[in-house]
Amino acid sequence: MRRQHPFHYPVPVIQPSHIEASAARIAPYVRVTPAIELEPHAFGSPAQVTLKLELMQHTGSFKARGAFNRILSAQVPDAGVIAASGGNHGAAVAYAARQLGHVAEIFVPERTPDIKVERLRRYGARVVLSGASYAEAYAASRQRAAQSGALEVHAYDQPEVVAGQGTLGRELEAQAPDLGTVLVAVGGGGLIAGVAAWYASRVKVVAVEPERCPTLYSAVEAGEPVDVDVSGVAADSLGARCIGRLAFDVAQQHVHSVVLVSDEEIRASQRALWDSLRILAEPGGAAALAGLRSGKYQPAPGERVGIIVCGGNTDPTRFAA
Amino acid sequence: MRRQHPFHYPVPVIQPSHIEASAARIAPYVRVTPAIELEPHAFGSPAQVTLKLELMQHTGSFKARGAFNRILSAQVPDAGVIAASGGNHGAAVAYAARQLGHVAEIFVPERTPDIKVERLRRYGARVVLSGASYAEAYAASRQRAAQSGALEVHAYDQPEVVAGQGTLGRELEAQAPDLGTVLVAVGGGGLIAGVAAWYASRVKVVAVEPERCPTLYSAVEAGEPVDVDVSGVAADSLGARCIGRLAFDVAQQHVHSVVLVSDEEIRASQRALWDSLRILAEPGGAAALAGLRSGKYQPAPGERVGIIVCGGNTDPTRFAA
Repeated sequence: MRRQHPFHYPVPVIQPSHIEASAARIAPYVRVTPAIELEPHAFGSPAQVTLKLELMQHTGSFKARGAFNRILSAQVPDAGVIAASGGNHGAAVAYAARQLGHVAEIFVPERTPDIKVERLRRYGARVVLSGASYAEAYAASRQRAAQSGALEVHAYDQPEVVAGQGTLGRELEAQAPDLGTVLVAVGGGGLIAGVAAWYASRVKVVAVEPERCPTLYSAVEAGEPVDVDVSGVAADSLGARCIGRLAFDVAQQHVHSVVLVSDEEIRASQRALWDSLRILAEPGGAAALAGLRSGKYQPAPGERVGIIVCGGNTDPTRFAA
Repeated sequence: MRRQHPFHYPVPVIQPSHIEASAARIAPYVRVTPAIELEPHAFGSPAQVTLKLELMQHTGSFKARGAFNRILSAQVPDAGVIAASGGNHGAAVAYAARQLGHVAEIFVPERTPDIKVERLRRYGARVVLSGASYAEAYAASRQRAAQSGALEVHAYDQPEVVAGQGTLGRELEAQAPDLGTVLVAVGGGGLIAGVAAWYASRVKVVAVEPERCPTLYSAVEAGEPVDVDVSGVAADSLGARCIGRLAFDVAQQHVHSVVLVSDEEIRASQRALWDSLRILAEPGGAAALAGLRSGKYQPAPGERVGIIVCGGNTDPTRFAA
């Protein structure tokens, strides 16, 4: 992404060999999720589309991969693990901790809806409501970790987390070996960093971001990670305020380009997934498809495009058909 | 099913070779739907479960397989094709006809909800509302076919339809070659007949029926197909009044047993599919899983059980979480 001189790049922290090792580490705990190759002209596109159905992962998103990898890579103290997130990451950490026999403390902002708090508790976590924003909840979690010694599991900016998410790229390549391009939604960038580190520019990895959560786009513009305002339909899963440092480094080397999609394009892709395949994705899970359906990413005719449907944590009863 | 002397059985009409030929015939038009092998103890079962995600088929159910196979096996007259069904079969016939360039007339009872009629029209069909019941709509469709010469596509009781549904069994075996048992929901019996004809007793094929739509169960009891009252949550997709003749014949040779599940067990399986996998199945699509989750089918520990999630034509906004 953005041609610069090679010596500007550090050796990337995440190598395919790390992802291989991570895949072996987490294999007993995560699902191999299906990929489905669609008929020609699916979604009206000239591309040959393969959907990676990661919404069927434990806890309904790819986040379980990174959470397991981080926890399994460490000596977990009696204080257990700690994370900040009322969303997919928090659920994945709570689930992984329980499966591995550790306690988990999950910090969430005070205004977190009861339904999300309940879900974390169902996965066995101790939930701490703290602060007015995610940033404040995160700060509180760091303080608590410093005190308790618990293992911190970051939502995206830790090498083990990124390598864990990268196992999705490895799995997709095994299922669909001849993709030319993979479209990946971006929030904090853990998933795209892992996937791009896996492919290491052997295929085009294209980032898709909501116009209203443009973390990677803004970082590319600025030449470094910068804070952005986040809002819109996909903010609950893609609404990180800033791209991760690791993700930015990997993206500079191995992400081909970034496209922005509107909330309406995301909603339309959610509807298209339901109408065509009876897949009910969360907005963030439909964002990558929106990159294709909107024409923002323009495939060559017949190009094989992989699209990661990365999460399904949505309320069916609120689905707008 | 039911031990009787072999000479009681005619040579079955549907042979694996017919299903092979059907698979080749319909391959350009239907999807290879994914199968996902779940973790040990999924759904609390001692079995090793593989789900066949046929709800991702075109038009949201397996019915597209039989519809394409029937239409592609015939010389279709200018009058096109005709069927009676306001549900999954009607949608599949309308879709297949349009894809193949034929006109389709679909007869539905007068009380059919607008949303179903609209769906058929979106697939390009001419919809005829006729009669107070499915039986009356079906009778009207037969009269019309006799008049127009259109090709009739039965919902389950034609060899090409059964052989088309059987391609699902063939596909599942390729994806999951070492299943010991396959659970299949039954309405008119087209799917189970096709799947059982494919496996030809090489694996146990177990029928799962709603207590309130017990067509095969009642036929087995009576020793021949008999009319039953149908109602309950799955009646929209499994509510045939009588098992098909073909299905009954195949079932006598190649279906291991029939289990009955309650509406509440079906609902609970719908919720379990959503909670565990973000799969939103219609009640009929969750019925086979209910056979396992309810304990009505008792697998041996570690037994590999395939479960067909055969349809997803439900309204997400009415999903009771």
